[in-house]
Amino acid sequence: MISNLQEIFSMAAKGMKRSAIRELLKLAQNPEIISFAGGLPAPETFPTDVLADITREVLEENGAIALQYGATEGDTKLRELIAANYKNDGFDITKENVLITTASQQGLDLLGKVFIDPGDKVLVGLPSYLGGLAAFNAYQADMVGIPFDEYGMRSDKIEKTLAELKAKNESPKFIYVIPDFQNPAGVTIPDFRRKEILNIAKRYDVLIIEDSPYKEIRFEGEHQTSLYALDNTGHVLNLGTFSKIFVPGFRIGWMIGHPDIIDKFVIAKQSTDLCTSPFVQKIAAKYIEKGYFSKNLKKTIQNYKEKKEVMIKAFEKYMPEQVTWTNPEGGLFLFITLPEHLDAGELFIKAIEKKVAFVKGSVFHCDGSGKNTMRINFSFVSKEKNLEGVKRLSQVIREAL
Amino acid sequence: MISNLQEIFSMAAKGMKRSAIRELLKLAQNPEIISFAGGLPAPETFPTDVLADITREVLEENGAIALQYGATEGDTKLRELIAANYKNDGFDITKENVLITTASQQGLDLLGKVFIDPGDKVLVGLPSYLGGLAAFNAYQADMVGIPFDEYGMRSDKIEKTLAELKAKNESPKFIYVIPDFQNPAGVTIPDFRRKEILNIAKRYDVLIIEDSPYKEIRFEGEHQTSLYALDNTGHVLNLGTFSKIFVPGFRIGWMIGHPDIIDKFVIAKQSTDLCTSPFVQKIAAKYIEKGYFSKNLKKTIQNYKEKKEVMIKAFEKYMPEQVTWTNPEGGLFLFITLPEHLDAGELFIKAIEKKVAFVKGSVFHCDGSGKNTMRINFSFVSKEKNLEGVKRLSQVIREAL
Repeated sequence: MISNLQEIFSMAAKGMKRSAIRELLKLAQNPEIISFAGGLPAPETFPTDVLADITREVLEENGAIALQYGATEGDTKLRELIAANYKNDGFDITKENVLITTASQQGLDLLGKVFIDPGDKVLVGLPSYLGGLAAFNAYQADMVGIPFDEYGMRSDKIEKTLAELKAKNESPKFIYVIPDFQNPAGVTIPDFRRKEILNIAKRYDVLIIEDSPYKEIRFEGEHQTSLYALDNTGHVLNLGTFSKIFVPGFRIGWMIGHPDIIDKFVIAKQSTDLCTSPFVQKIAAKYIEKGYFSKNLKKTIQNYKEKKEVMIKAFEKYMPEQVTWTNPEGGLFLFITLPEHLDAGELFIKAIEKKVAFVKGSVFHCDGSGKNTMRINFSFVSKEKNLEGVKRLSQVIREAL
Repeated sequence: MISNLQEIFSMAAKGMKRSAIRELLKLAQNPEIISFAGGLPAPETFPTDVLADITREVLEENGAIALQYGATEGDTKLRELIAANYKNDGFDITKENVLITTASQQGLDLLGKVFIDPGDKVLVGLPSYLGGLAAFNAYQADMVGIPFDEYGMRSDKIEKTLAELKAKNESPKFIYVIPDFQNPAGVTIPDFRRKEILNIAKRYDVLIIEDSPYKEIRFEGEHQTSLYALDNTGHVLNLGTFSKIFVPGFRIGWMIGHPDIIDKFVIAKQSTDLCTSPFVQKIAAKYIEKGYFSKNLKKTIQNYKEKKEVMIKAFEKYMPEQVTWTNPEGGLFLFITLPEHLDAGELFIKAIEKKVAFVKGSVFHCDGSGKNTMRINFSFVSKEKNLEGVKRLSQVIREAL
């Protein structure tokens, strides 16, 4: 073995730790454990049957292209279909604004590659998506946490932070926002708050990264306008993905932005994986073209709506009074807040003993706060297990109280 | 538009340029042009028919897993199959040594992420694979070129460079070697030279990256032992891919190494794309299990052997005497050397006029040398076109002389 392995790692690699979630999820793999820990879509929403037929069609019609290297920008037809879908949502875009990525996680990694030098500031929510934090951390970003209220990231705190940085002649590289059914908090930013955040970003000339993997999974309440659609001035980059609204196993996501920005990401992506699989892109494009996408998504929304309702009712019935939770209007997650003196990390071990799992909220906080919070996924297991799992979890919390 | 876009790019992004090849390849897209420029496998080698059946089987037997998120390490069955295949080749490994990557280009990117801080030295061949140079450049590596002789990278020059660096108390992060049918040179390093390079690396305690995407495409001559198999002491990381021996459209590659190194790459990959598509991994695993892989590969080898022979014969017949070329025993590329005073970059425009394309060799040289060289791909177009393309190219060179 090379004798100085630890020394030859890059600064970035030295700062990489095994993901806490990854290790915890291993504990949760016991089939007797009801896991609210992962962020997995329900397998019963996967359109398995039609995909076999569609794959055959793609291979028969287009095999030589589907199995070959493809353009770094992505499949033209798929980019057109995605652009058309977002146009319905007020985005002023064409396929030239769309870069296909190897799922959203690659978009997050490329953000680090294209924008972040070690020590650069990035504004993130307290809490925020762990995969985003990990990607920015891999480029040694200095993350500044913005606290939440019931409407999500606090615009006053964003403005205060930008003003303080400006006084020091500094500026963050971007503000990372998950506006719809946020992971992990389950909170949706209302239009008025989105406009506040956007106006602040424009005033300080800072880019907003709008990461919205769940936007189309709304059970109830009113659609809120995308930051990208509110803007259309080049201050917002939007990330999307099929992982939650179609299948994660294809690893297809996209980035939407001004062509001058997209152009740099194309170059960065090229040295990263040359192109996203043309095979899965062609299958996805045909799946949308044939109308399966919208139909299947409706079923997914209904499925998750029912699962969330079961869970919220179970919370109301079984949870101790001192415990609160968010009640998301969509998405896959809700967030539990325990009394201040409880540590969700300590509860985790007891929860595993009682055969239920969650993710402690502190891992979503770049400053390590949120010890009395936990993220609960309601999309993956059945309604029956959601109910049973809440009973177990309530018992764990009751005992700790 | 954000007003200071150019300023907010990272140092790495500021150093990224649109790939020269990418831009040139656009010129070569005219269907009348015979392109020797790309590095594409022949579409007639793609097993289109059986893949439709296999996909159906995978979806029927394993749809819920194939379409879901997967382990970052990769599909267990596929890792086992790959480990077993390399065991036949003298690798002392199990699946714990194998990380599935989103094709080899991701492996190259992760090498940068895990090892390279700005200014770190990396030893590369003169010439070397452009995608490797681009990946290391994205992490701001300081690349040191090692000249070639007929046996590939010169071991004496490697040793001299390492000694000079050591005298300054420096050491490169790794030596990047493409031992089999090198891209772009078409040269294979013989066993004696491999042992020399390996012994030098061990003596200086430096890691070797063995990138071998073409190893299994040998038409003639004798198999040479992998550096990894010669070593088995943890001084070699091996990169492989299905792109040239199965299909590039799946974007599946792998990295083989000591588990302590692989472990760090798993963490790095997680923030990069979470996992490689389980869907294509399951299809690939079943394709191998059913015995299609070996059968199809034999046909691919025969196909490329014939194409290369046609091309070499055409060179002998049509090329001016002052021009030399490598005659690879396998792979997809050969390398042409023109008289010193000719500039392949200048010839490119004339070649496009005559409807034939290649890649100028200087882009494969980290120091910008090799102006009188060109890379020729013989795998993609038909034998007839290989012949006609050489006629056209010879004409271009003749006129320049």
